Amino acid sequence: MAKDPLPSWRAGKVKSAILDFVARVTDPGGADFVPAPQRIAAFDNDGTLWCERPFLPQFYFASERLDALVKREPELAGRVPFKPYVERDLPAIKQLGKRGLLEVVAAVHGGTTVDEFAAIAREWLGRATNPKLGRRFVDLVYVPQLELLDYLRANGFKCFIVSGGGIDLIRGFAENVYGIPPEQVVGSSERLHFEMRGDKGVIVKEAALASFDDREVKPVNIALHIGRRPILVFGNSDGDLAMMRYALSGEGASLALLLHHDDATREFEYDRDYVISPLSEALEKAGDYGITLVSMKGDWDRVFAG
Amino acid sequence: MAKDPLPSWRAGKVKSAILDFVARVTDPGGADFVPAPQRIAAFDNDGTLWCERPFLPQFYFASERLDALVKREPELAGRVPFKPYVERDLPAIKQLGKRGLLEVVAAVHGGTTVDEFAAIAREWLGRATNPKLGRRFVDLVYVPQLELLDYLRANGFKCFIVSGGGIDLIRGFAENVYGIPPEQVVGSSERLHFEMRGDKGVIVKEAALASFDDREVKPVNIALHIGRRPILVFGNSDGDLAMMRYALSGEGASLALLLHHDDATREFEYDRDYVISPLSEALEKAGDYGITLVSMKGDWDRVFAG
Repeated sequence: MAKDPLPSWRAGKVKSAILDFVARVTDPGGADFVPAPQRIAAFDNDGTLWCERPFLPQFYFASERLDALVKREPELAGRVPFKPYVERDLPAIKQLGKRGLLEVVAAVHGGTTVDEFAAIAREWLGRATNPKLGRRFVDLVYVPQLELLDYLRANGFKCFIVSGGGIDLIRGFAENVYGIPPEQVVGSSERLHFEMRGDKGVIVKEAALASFDDREVKPVNIALHIGRRPILVFGNSDGDLAMMRYALSGEGASLALLLHHDDATREFEYDRDYVISPLSEALEKAGDYGITLVSMKGDWDRVFAG
Repeated sequence: MAKDPLPSWRAGKVKSAILDFVARVTDPGGADFVPAPQRIAAFDNDGTLWCERPFLPQFYFASERLDALVKREPELAGRVPFKPYVERDLPAIKQLGKRGLLEVVAAVHGGTTVDEFAAIAREWLGRATNPKLGRRFVDLVYVPQLELLDYLRANGFKCFIVSGGGIDLIRGFAENVYGIPPEQVVGSSERLHFEMRGDKGVIVKEAALASFDDREVKPVNIALHIGRRPILVFGNSDGDLAMMRYALSGEGASLALLLHHDDATREFEYDRDYVISPLSEALEKAGDYGITLVSMKGDWDRVFAG
């Protein structure tokens, strides 16, 4: 018998659906065959590839960066969009949602070059830990998903991240951690401009969001960056529903997977109540839309490494 | 002796510069070694990979599409930005430049889905011919560049197009003709939105340019789409100068190549005078900036296939 390519996935309907789908689209004689260049997979990041609780890693990044900035320029503390962050006013922060978070990251980094930002991100990612789980964020990636990424690549898929998170923070670890290179990362992004600093051409981040890559914007950015309709999409919130429906509307075979965080013991249990990125409509309509629901508790034998 | 990987390039300083550069960045023991994932090459398209004279292929596409539209809706003929195109007022068209051309393409295709556009583009590309050279546009690609793309890929490079042309028209032929898949094409783009048409999720083009991928916008779109600084850039106009300087500002070895159309016999002879996409500053400053000038007449043994 061949070695199980997904050892951290428990046998069951979901694992079979994945194995069956990959077998069908890679069978050159089958009705569902898809040529390799069209085997595009799009994964959400927060809550799909890595842990997003108790709060999005980007929140801890934004808060730390903002604290440092306010120490230098105290008058910023009272200003929009910083105030709720400086005061750690969680209800207000949640109300402002993921977009609010990204606006803080953008505002803090206005004037920073993408090279400078990459160094800042790498340093932070190398040490920042999840306050609840006590491990580094980059170590709190889901082992079953790492196996799935490898399995898809071994079957000719090209895997992209399509995330509401900031594109440059994700690019700071996606290659090392997921094997996904920068050019296969799509995310929220700030306005940028090019300038010469002395004889060095640099790209400078501006203090304003250009694209908030969530909900209906995800398939739009897929069209812009990838230019093909994915045949496999994996998400975990209503923010991923539009790209799931986009994938499922393709001509050929397609698979949309929705991770349900129902595992309070090994990770967290949440859906509608996670205000900053809720799972509600996608959960209710999964059956109608042909979305395959993945239970962390039931379908994953392991969650994290180690 | 090993087979010449660039048989259509004549021996000389330029060919040596290319071969030497590739040898240096791929030598694991050398000081200029660049790991394969960082070997990013960015090519302009119009005038760099395919012929852009007597006028940009996109002009013929826009004109034909507009004529069909005006037949159905004659009142459009007098409107901005259509009027000079309907009247074939070449001086005015030139004055509006490449951006004007892209605005017509955008205006004509507002409401079209990207899938519908792909079919329109494929049909047109399959038959549209250059009125001066009497061959299809897709057959008027430069053989030396096809060899260079293959040579770079064989040496671990990932080749991207970064063009002022419309991204979706280029995606209509880049994979078949250049071996460059849609996700490695960056270009000018319209605003897009996602909508459900019945139970089909589609991406709809809006009648407005979102990004005119020229000059300083090229390195910006490289940062957004690719997320790495290219180590090799190839262009042919002032529109490519910013991305050349961006590549040449990297930490390690880099090469920027500028094609000079100085071959009236086999192709066209033009630079400053091609108003719609002139080559002037880049030509004057090539030496100062460390840009390698490529003479079509001198450095290419062949221009087109057949």
